[in-house]
Amino acid sequence: MNIGFIGMGTMGAPMAKRLVQAGHSVTVHNRTQEKEEVVAAVGARRAASAKEVGWDAELVIIMVSDTPDVQAVVLGDTGVIHSMQPGSILIDMSTISPAATRKIARALSEKGIEMLDAPVSGGSEGAIHGTLSIMVGGKPEVLERVHSILEIMGSTITLVGPIGSGQVTKAINQVIIAGVYASVAEGLALGLAAGVDIEAAHRAVSGGAAGSWILENRGANMIQNHYPLGFRSRLHRKDLGIALDAAGDLGVPIPIAAYVAQLETGLIKRGFGEEDVSNIARVIREQAGLN
Amino acid sequence: MNIGFIGMGTMGAPMAKRLVQAGHSVTVHNRTQEKEEVVAAVGARRAASAKEVGWDAELVIIMVSDTPDVQAVVLGDTGVIHSMQPGSILIDMSTISPAATRKIARALSEKGIEMLDAPVSGGSEGAIHGTLSIMVGGKPEVLERVHSILEIMGSTITLVGPIGSGQVTKAINQVIIAGVYASVAEGLALGLAAGVDIEAAHRAVSGGAAGSWILENRGANMIQNHYPLGFRSRLHRKDLGIALDAAGDLGVPIPIAAYVAQLETGLIKRGFGEEDVSNIARVIREQAGLN
Repeated sequence: MNIGFIGMGTMGAPMAKRLVQAGHSVTVHNRTQEKEEVVAAVGARRAASAKEVGWDAELVIIMVSDTPDVQAVVLGDTGVIHSMQPGSILIDMSTISPAATRKIARALSEKGIEMLDAPVSGGSEGAIHGTLSIMVGGKPEVLERVHSILEIMGSTITLVGPIGSGQVTKAINQVIIAGVYASVAEGLALGLAAGVDIEAAHRAVSGGAAGSWILENRGANMIQNHYPLGFRSRLHRKDLGIALDAAGDLGVPIPIAAYVAQLETGLIKRGFGEEDVSNIARVIREQAGLN
Repeated sequence: MNIGFIGMGTMGAPMAKRLVQAGHSVTVHNRTQEKEEVVAAVGARRAASAKEVGWDAELVIIMVSDTPDVQAVVLGDTGVIHSMQPGSILIDMSTISPAATRKIARALSEKGIEMLDAPVSGGSEGAIHGTLSIMVGGKPEVLERVHSILEIMGSTITLVGPIGSGQVTKAINQVIIAGVYASVAEGLALGLAAGVDIEAAHRAVSGGAAGSWILENRGANMIQNHYPLGFRSRLHRKDLGIALDAAGDLGVPIPIAAYVAQLETGLIKRGFGEEDVSNIARVIREQAGLN
């Protein structure tokens, strides 16, 4: 398939590389053009703008940072909306606003271009190994046409509803992990302050109702007060902003997520935004005088 | 071994029954004496008071509801402290205050009686099948003497530090589950309000970083707004009270656990205390107008 791919960051570059290596004809573009080189080296063509990516693409995939970036590369002066052909498909795999997603889809629809929103979880490792979990919003028949392409990048592909639903599902994911990180940190801070054998206590609670991916995979780092990546705190804060806006629009109070967002705002200001998101434990430990 | 067992509730009765069936000589007592009958029926002797349980017991196990209950059956006028022999061991498997536990242990120590605190997780099913997770505080050499007895009741036995540490670990467990329940409820409420395919979204987020025992085992009930037991909301609120007191004594702020405790206080007042603790989703849904 003729595929355009916009966004050659930590996620986009390895995802595009997998598409090239699977035998597809891939044209890439990135705002900072040097970042295209690693994918060009395995056989991708390079385009000078998003618009240029769109001309002969049957499918355009976008993987950029935030809502305004997607709006720019789709709807902006040099956006793909000015070049993509009727009947072609755009998949936005970035994590952005569900409301903005629906607006972009409406604009594309007027030109006869189909859209799916398909944000992912699984991090850069999942992008490299093609094991991402992909949450798809859109029409089932459109997903059908690109399912085999998504399978090159992800091991789990779930259709979760109409356009925008992928972004809502990603927001659900980020809201849940916000509270789980903070709750695990509260529990561990209590154990550290009480002077129990914290590794043994961690082990004892991990197997039961308190068990989670986060306790299992990040608990030891939180005990050590050491936060290697993982997933950047700064990016999780960005995603929580999207979730809080979406929840606000819907009239859904999510006070725990809002509280965690506030703590992350402080961590980022203090220079900890590039640490793993498990660094929410840093501030919860500090509040207890535990550092 | 000659074992005394005080507390024939939902947990204590099946635990004592397992000890009888393993061939031990067990004497039981319960405040409401009819509850002794089910264990007497399989061969336990009955005692008219806690004190009477203590006379010839090498080991006394306590499984009652709350801190004042343990204080009464150990230190009260008819408590086991007045009858247990020097060199014997008391194991409190109730969930109570760590600070009160240390005081009780000191009083017993003056009489030459050893104590372990050994609260459990795993619920009534774990009590029946002997698959409880037991979190033990106390001296390793005392645990050594009763390890084979604990193995009859639990499949995981973890020594987590000196006396009181078992209770702290249980508090860690209850603090973590408080926040995880509430965070999962916030995420699912967002999805329900947004009108995504909520079962599909639940599936999509369960396998990754948002995954937990609670999302896996209670998410569907929270989506249905239906809260069969499980573990009573009322008892979790009691345990959170213990955790909040312990955290307060140590100067550890645990605001998410405190917030969940407040919501549970309201649920209990409104008659929902006998539902499963996953009913925290009931109030989070209500706040979003989702019922």
